[in-house]
Amino acid sequence: MAWSPLDGLDPALVQRAARIRLACFDVDGTLTDGRLYYDEEGREWKTFHSVDGQGLALLRRFGFALAFITARASPATEKRGAELGVETYVQEKDKLARVHLLCERLGIGLDQVAFLGDDLADLAPLQKVGLAVAPGNAHPWVLEHVHWQTRARGGEGAARELCDVLLAAQGHVPALLEAAGASGSSAARTDVGASAGT
Amino acid sequence: MAWSPLDGLDPALVQRAARIRLACFDVDGTLTDGRLYYDEEGREWKTFHSVDGQGLALLRRFGFALAFITARASPATEKRGAELGVETYVQEKDKLARVHLLCERLGIGLDQVAFLGDDLADLAPLQKVGLAVAPGNAHPWVLEHVHWQTRARGGEGAARELCDVLLAAQGHVPALLEAAGASGSSAARTDVGASAGT
Amino acid sequence: MAWSPLDGLDPALVQRAARIRLACFDVDGTLTDGRLYYDEEGREWKTFHSVDGQGLALLRRFGFALAFITARASPATEKRGAELGVETYVQEKDKLARVHLLCERLGIGLDQVAFLGDDLADLAPLQKVGLAVAPGNAHPWVLEHVHWQTRARGGEGAARELCDVLLAAQGHVPALLEAAGASGSSAARTDVGASAGT
Amino acid sequence: MAWSPLDGLDPALVQRAARIRLACFDVDGTLTDGRLYYDEEGREWKTFHSVDGQGLALLRRFGFALAFITARASPATEKRGAELGVETYVQEKDKLARVHLLCERLGIGLDQVAFLGDDLADLAPLQKVGLAVAPGNAHPWVLEHVHWQTRARGGEGAARELCDVLLAAQGHVPALLEAAGASGSSAARTDVGASAGT
Repeated sequence: MAWSPLDGLDPALVQRAARIRLACFDVDGTLTDGRLYYDEEGREWKTFHSVDGQGLALLRRFGFALAFITARASPATEKRGAELGVETYVQEKDKLARVHLLCERLGIGLDQVAFLGDDLADLAPLQKVGLAVAPGNAHPWVLEHVHWQTRARGGEGAARELCDVLLAAQGHVPALLEAAGASGSSAARTDVGASAGT
Repeated sequence: MAWSPLDGLDPALVQRAARIRLACFDVDGTLTDGRLYYDEEGREWKTFHSVDGQGLALLRRFGFALAFITARASPATEKRGAELGVETYVQEKDKLARVHLLCERLGIGLDQVAFLGDDLADLAPLQKVGLAVAPGNAHPWVLEHVHWQTRARGGEGAARELCDVLLAAQGHVPALLEAAGASGSSAARTDVGASAGT
Repeated sequence: MAWSPLDGLDPALVQRAARIRLACFDVDGTLTDGRLYYDEEGREWKTFHSVDGQGLALLRRFGFALAFITARASPATEKRGAELGVETYVQEKDKLARVHLLCERLGIGLDQVAFLGDDLADLAPLQKVGLAVAPGNAHPWVLEHVHWQTRARGGEGAARELCDVLLAAQGHVPALLEAAGASGSSAARTDVGASAGT
Repeated sequence: MAWSPLDGLDPALVQRAARIRLACFDVDGTLTDGRLYYDEEGREWKTFHSVDGQGLALLRRFGFALAFITARASPATEKRGAELGVETYVQEKDKLARVHLLCERLGIGLDQVAFLGDDLADLAPLQKVGLAVAPGNAHPWVLEHVHWQTRARGGEGAARELCDVLLAAQGHVPALLEAAGASGSSAARTDVGASAGT
């Protein structure tokens, strides 16, 4: 049996994921590991993760609307958003208001929105959207207000887990694996040699 | 039952936290993970953490006095302090003397001071203040001289744990959760949908 | 008994490793930990690892052909490849096609190629080469299509593990240890003093 | 009972440590976590650690000779060495020869030298010196040739563990704790308040 992102998930959670049209992401601690790098001239850097970038690119390819929404000003965040083709809102004081505006523009309801966030500034949108998710290492005050927490930590694959669940819940996995050149099932792997390893 | 930063803490420790007016923080290994980044031109960087920054911002909002006190010269530390509006003392040879001066200016006693530190240079103030705390990965010589050690490592949430305990011990949690838009209790979350996830 | 990279490996896997002439490596998440560092001017950094570099240098010394193959444009990757003397293909849309071209030039078959990769873009070559390997923290869709997964994570020694297995499977360990000045066996260590420690 | 760096160590190992006059350190993977940061212009950075720096400063204060010995060219390493006042040898092709030269100059024997290293290039000196140590995450080929491995990983406190053992084995702990302002024993801590925490 091939692995699925939905393995072990509550069916009610999968139903929530099946309705999502817009996926919103906090940045620090969510798309990054929370570290803020300071150099001697007062400039700031962050680290994003390649597996999260791959997940976001897949969501985009399959037609999801995407947004980064962060309270912090950050040229690095704007650069990352631009690179991935994701609408990026920095210095956003009211994240829930931003989500409302996006819903209005897209003509969708809050039940069609997923939000991934890790700290207090994310609590307001997390309590209203259809699919509220937190990285596994989010603040306890956030964890008690979400529908699901990822296994991965923020900035180390949490966003990818959410992307994979959205893609799987909406039936896109066979198409994306085919595009990646996967030959149907893991059993096919043994075509290459006499005996597969571990 | 909603999560509280005071869950499982010794009541005597909570009493100590309830008296604190000034919170002091060492920097390397405490507000950072101890890593010192060097480039080819001899400049130095550090990484601070967004969850610690959120905690410090909350302490400030609720009227605590704050100070960063470090033996090391560092423009990055001064930048981080300025950004968070925290008094920052670098190249401080005698941390305990600095704490005494701050107490004098604020008109408070050492029992109203919390200090978070991880290594030998922090031992002197840690042995005198009302609430001595070390990150979970502090040096053993420090760990045996503090009232409490955080679960988180330095630079990865240790400061936030202390901030949350101070806020909770002084009764500020309902106000801060309300400001964050939390709707009272985690049970409220299920209003959004038929069945909450994990 | 001295430690060997082949300890505990499936004999069929060692047979695969014994045939390899070309070792190909994905970059982000494989030779790096997946982190993408962004500064305020939009420049990007990555981190490679010294133990992986040592392994690649050994493969080169013992005559293996090597290639870095990545979908992402990156001056940092090109710099690392140049430093190690490894052919480096960035912005490669079709990794399997690149592997085919390399095989043609070297006059070898796909069964003589090892590929180390962690995400969907690596699936096509991983399903065709003689030795398909993934870092222990690779995406589950990749893990189910490889012959072997390393204990180490990407960017933290995964490449070195593969290098060590290739070197050992082809009988180069005695020569490399002798070149490093190892005096034959660990028992020799006790010559230095009366009683060896832990 | 106060914690000691010698707790649980083999007495023969402590005897070795008691004889050391010169402590030598590999750099990448030993004083750093092995990560090599590359920027777009081809410059390289590394991360050292504040707790290791503290340990090296203590060794210096108590009269130990110190050296960094690395095969890799690196301005960052030279900067770190200069900052700590440690003789730094970069691009060293033959680490054992360097150790011999240092012994000659200092008029000491190899049994009075400690060496901390993690990979093949360190094997030759590790097999000759009086105290051969590796970080806990060193390469297995190195681990089987050392007298002792630290609990900490390279670049995250491994060097500090060695420093603490050398200081303790030579009786300097009471003096260094007194200089740090530690009031004798951990029991003294409860002077500050009625009831100490966890």
